[in-house]
Amino acid sequence: MTPTDTADQIRTQLGQMGHAARAAARLMARANTAAKNRALREIATQMEAQRAQLIEANIRDMQAGRAQGLDAALLDRLELDNTRIDDMIAGLLQVADLPDPVGEIEHLRYRPSGIQVGRMRVPLGVVGIIYESRPNVTIDAASLCLKSGNATILRGGSEALHSNQAIAACIAAGLRASDLPETAVQVVGTSDRAAVGALITMPEYLDVIVPRGGTGLIERVSREASVPVIKHLHGVCHVYIDDRADPQKAFDIALNAKTRRYGVCNAMETLLVAEGIAAEILPRLAAAYESKGVELRGCERTREILPRCLAAVEADWAEEYLAPLLSIRVVADMDAAMAHIARYGSGHTEAIVSEDYSRSRRFLTEVDSSSVMVNASTGFADGFEYGLGAEIGISTDKIHARGPVGLEGLTSRKWIVLGDGHIRQ
Amino acid sequence: MTPTDTADQIRTQLGQMGHAARAAARLMARANTAAKNRALREIATQMEAQRAQLIEANIRDMQAGRAQGLDAALLDRLELDNTRIDDMIAGLLQVADLPDPVGEIEHLRYRPSGIQVGRMRVPLGVVGIIYESRPNVTIDAASLCLKSGNATILRGGSEALHSNQAIAACIAAGLRASDLPETAVQVVGTSDRAAVGALITMPEYLDVIVPRGGTGLIERVSREASVPVIKHLHGVCHVYIDDRADPQKAFDIALNAKTRRYGVCNAMETLLVAEGIAAEILPRLAAAYESKGVELRGCERTREILPRCLAAVEADWAEEYLAPLLSIRVVADMDAAMAHIARYGSGHTEAIVSEDYSRSRRFLTEVDSSSVMVNASTGFADGFEYGLGAEIGISTDKIHARGPVGLEGLTSRKWIVLGDGHIRQ
Repeated sequence: MTPTDTADQIRTQLGQMGHAARAAARLMARANTAAKNRALREIATQMEAQRAQLIEANIRDMQAGRAQGLDAALLDRLELDNTRIDDMIAGLLQVADLPDPVGEIEHLRYRPSGIQVGRMRVPLGVVGIIYESRPNVTIDAASLCLKSGNATILRGGSEALHSNQAIAACIAAGLRASDLPETAVQVVGTSDRAAVGALITMPEYLDVIVPRGGTGLIERVSREASVPVIKHLHGVCHVYIDDRADPQKAFDIALNAKTRRYGVCNAMETLLVAEGIAAEILPRLAAAYESKGVELRGCERTREILPRCLAAVEADWAEEYLAPLLSIRVVADMDAAMAHIARYGSGHTEAIVSEDYSRSRRFLTEVDSSSVMVNASTGFADGFEYGLGAEIGISTDKIHARGPVGLEGLTSRKWIVLGDGHIRQ
Repeated sequence: MTPTDTADQIRTQLGQMGHAARAAARLMARANTAAKNRALREIATQMEAQRAQLIEANIRDMQAGRAQGLDAALLDRLELDNTRIDDMIAGLLQVADLPDPVGEIEHLRYRPSGIQVGRMRVPLGVVGIIYESRPNVTIDAASLCLKSGNATILRGGSEALHSNQAIAACIAAGLRASDLPETAVQVVGTSDRAAVGALITMPEYLDVIVPRGGTGLIERVSREASVPVIKHLHGVCHVYIDDRADPQKAFDIALNAKTRRYGVCNAMETLLVAEGIAAEILPRLAAAYESKGVELRGCERTREILPRCLAAVEADWAEEYLAPLLSIRVVADMDAAMAHIARYGSGHTEAIVSEDYSRSRRFLTEVDSSSVMVNASTGFADGFEYGLGAEIGISTDKIHARGPVGLEGLTSRKWIVLGDGHIRQ
């Protein structure tokens, strides 16, 4: 398929893929753990065997990307070298080793009527993943969907088309070798953007869409989708240093939360400091940030303590910098900090540094974010750190899944009832 | 407000309600269990004290309804008499007695990094409920949202406007008396249908929409909403009688599932019978159905056994009769039954009657419905029977909540992290 196909043709093609995915989903839902793990290991074997083809396909994408003038960051994400193939293979084997969530029965209890009622974990069905030109996401997403018993339709960025097709060939060979339906993982083979529009408006075939990528993509998908979306928007994360904080812990956490990595969603973007401790803590922190090349933008009271700090403007408080930039605000107390977070935060991750029991307890309870922390760096907001084993993304939604989404987030629970001829009065 | 208001005015008004609801939601999320229970009991007291006003307001709605020519079923649902007020009061007290889901922490465990990670149950935030002209839903929905720590905006059918406003006055008085924000429960005061359109497209103010009512309303809301929807569509429920069924259990369950009540979503609409047992079981069942006035529509093989049975057409298999009508199909075996369910079912509730261990196990695992039962009547698919204590609806969605939705379905879980100055490497 080429970009000259009409939107109608693309819709028809995606409808056929959706239909095949539905059929595959029924078989995947009943596939046993051993078969799913065998497929994951077999895909790893295929990737190992087809290294040369994978790199060759990627070279075609890289050449086209350079000719198109893609910037260095995009080209870096697009590239597949031996190390990245090693990582993908390791990822497949890790997912094979994770416990299978499907079929777990919880809370099976007798009711007064005599029936037993419980809940069984089941796959969602067909999962659509829309992502940018990062070929490794193809394997990440496919392996998590496969292990959780879902069928999946993957639509990666058009710049990675050849790489994704080469990876898709490995996945198909792995599924075939394990007697699982080849259509359990399908990669959309057209680079036409109309494919995204078609995919997100097929609720008859898809049970959920996970967009992974820039804010523009995610906002478009959320706005136009008639399929439920598990989405990750901004990460405007805060650390609040309370006046009862241990200064060393505050220093370590505030430095780590900002400087561990800049381009990640769990990096701190705004530091809130109680006025009672600001003069003590800020100069030492500012020196450390400066030595790391972090630009500071502060409120007026911050600038009284740090005269070289630039002035923050209103827009700074709501900005996800994803860069060596930090806004700092001195606040009266924890209530002022929580009010700031409620107003400007994105509900991703917030941390308090405090030795005060009651304040820590209130912060944990009252801050409405997907991760809320006491005396720990926001950098811990991550599926691997939380023990999920793998992560399909971090949800900033409130329903279904909040925060890091692993295998469990790709499942749901149905009710099961066991009786012995029971009828309802 | 009257139906002559412009859509813009209505949008502005609902925006103000949404803004107030957001502020109330923050206070509700931190309200303790005692305060929420006090409010529920205080609302009950107010309803008791204002019986006369409630009935008077309802008489105005009933008179207008009769003048408009509403049919008898609608008028019946609209009516508020002393018995229904008693039921609403009892419902409020029952919800007050339920355990509070908010704040429950699960699986708090140490990770190798030294942090403790767990999940805390929290309210969703602001819940919008759109429903038909049944004033009792106003109290049901308000009480469940209140107990689960959510703010709510209620939009009932326009025919019940005066009744709902009288109930809203009781709710407001109860909230005031308990020091909870009055705007925690707001009833939309316009009968203009544009209010629904505005409500479902305010993701900045609403976290979830629960439409309760006819298929037309629910389909419209699902199609147009930019807010996530917890919805309940059709209930095309099946009972499959396996050839290894105990005939008495099969008889009891098949009769109960159809005839306990006809107009409910968990009533059986299609009976599937294995060919090996059809001749033994169907004549006795048909006689019982006939004595209850149930019209039967069967496949060809059914009609060979039951010559007086009408012929089912293709459309019968997908129909939610909600009436004393039953379609019957003789199938080769359980696989054929499951294929029929996958094709025609709505994913609501299905039951198998069988003494066979392996088949029961497979049916439980492989049937993809919100409730799957062995040797029990589909009539048990209900929040009260499952032990939820109360029910805001039955979800036929796959993400977030499947099946009966109680207090837990109005909550989500955030991650909490406890450290002691931990930073991430």
